[in-house]
Amino acid sequence: MFVLSSPSGAGKTTISRKLLAAEQNLRMSVSVTTRPMRPGEVDGKDYIFSDRAGFEQRVAQDGFLEWAEVFGNHYGTPRAEIEAGLEAGQDFLFDIDWQGTQQLYQRAEKDVVRVFLLPPSIAALESRLRNRGTDSAEVIAGRMARARSEISHWDGYDYVVVNDDIEGCFAKVRIILEAERLRRSRQTGLVDFVRGLVS
Amino acid sequence: MFVLSSPSGAGKTTISRKLLAAEQNLRMSVSVTTRPMRPGEVDGKDYIFSDRAGFEQRVAQDGFLEWAEVFGNHYGTPRAEIEAGLEAGQDFLFDIDWQGTQQLYQRAEKDVVRVFLLPPSIAALESRLRNRGTDSAEVIAGRMARARSEISHWDGYDYVVVNDDIEGCFAKVRIILEAERLRRSRQTGLVDFVRGLVS
Repeated sequence: MFVLSSPSGAGKTTISRKLLAAEQNLRMSVSVTTRPMRPGEVDGKDYIFSDRAGFEQRVAQDGFLEWAEVFGNHYGTPRAEIEAGLEAGQDFLFDIDWQGTQQLYQRAEKDVVRVFLLPPSIAALESRLRNRGTDSAEVIAGRMARARSEISHWDGYDYVVVNDDIEGCFAKVRIILEAERLRRSRQTGLVDFVRGLVS
Repeated sequence: MFVLSSPSGAGKTTISRKLLAAEQNLRMSVSVTTRPMRPGEVDGKDYIFSDRAGFEQRVAQDGFLEWAEVFGNHYGTPRAEIEAGLEAGQDFLFDIDWQGTQQLYQRAEKDVVRVFLLPPSIAALESRLRNRGTDSAEVIAGRMARARSEISHWDGYDYVVVNDDIEGCFAKVRIILEAERLRRSRQTGLVDFVRGLVS
């Protein structure tokens, strides 16, 4: 489970897309949500859409690796789907915030690699949020406050990458993913391979 | 501290050389030894040469991060030199066996990354040892027994790389080194950088 967190505007979405395009065995974790489906969204691909009762039942059955309520809607990472994928050797990418990461780290039985992206400066972050061009000064100020709050949790991550250049940042995040796959504990075929070597 | 171990003949020396040539901030750890200097060797570069009394004094003063006796000669990693280098931001490469790695891991206060190289097969390993062409069948048999014994300690390492292709193996070892440098705990300037971001 490969977690990528960052404040909004620090490039997480771009890095995630590039990583998914480059890495065959990596798939985005699909969340369950109670919010209404939007035009163009596909159930089971963008989200697994659920009513409130179904969501609460999953919560009661310990069916989420992490979940949260955001602006009245619920979002959660379904335990069964992820664990079945991991068991089959599938790696998952998680685009979640520090609270989701903390929950995932505490609740997941299998291992989690946590990467935090930082903007090169607050000015660069604000400029990226302004350039989206759709939001009022108040909305941007609110986003900046949330960004500062998200950044303050950088120390709950295994790796930190400063995104001062999208290609360089992508290369570093990919290096982290590939190195973590070389960990002895994750190479499930090694025990048999070494048994063959020394027998 | 970046440790590379492998059975003799699995390519550790070649990988070490390539890594030192490619990585500016990586230096070979220089051992102290009591064995006589050989022609062409430079004191302080190949080894730090010492008499037995000097070596034993260092041992008594807890002056080694790891040490061993091999065929009547002593070899050890000097604590003061390595710790001063680490303090100055220098990374060190260690070409040591599983016993040295275990000692280093237990005694070093600062962190150690342990990488083990495996040969693609026992036949490939034996073929490499034979191709050196200088040794008798008995010597080779002895080396193969030691190689099997070294391989049996593969599970004391953080990462394992199978050396079936020298360029591919080198790329993987380098990826491990570069990813480990991106660990939050090793980026000493981050605390100040983040303080600047959120202030």
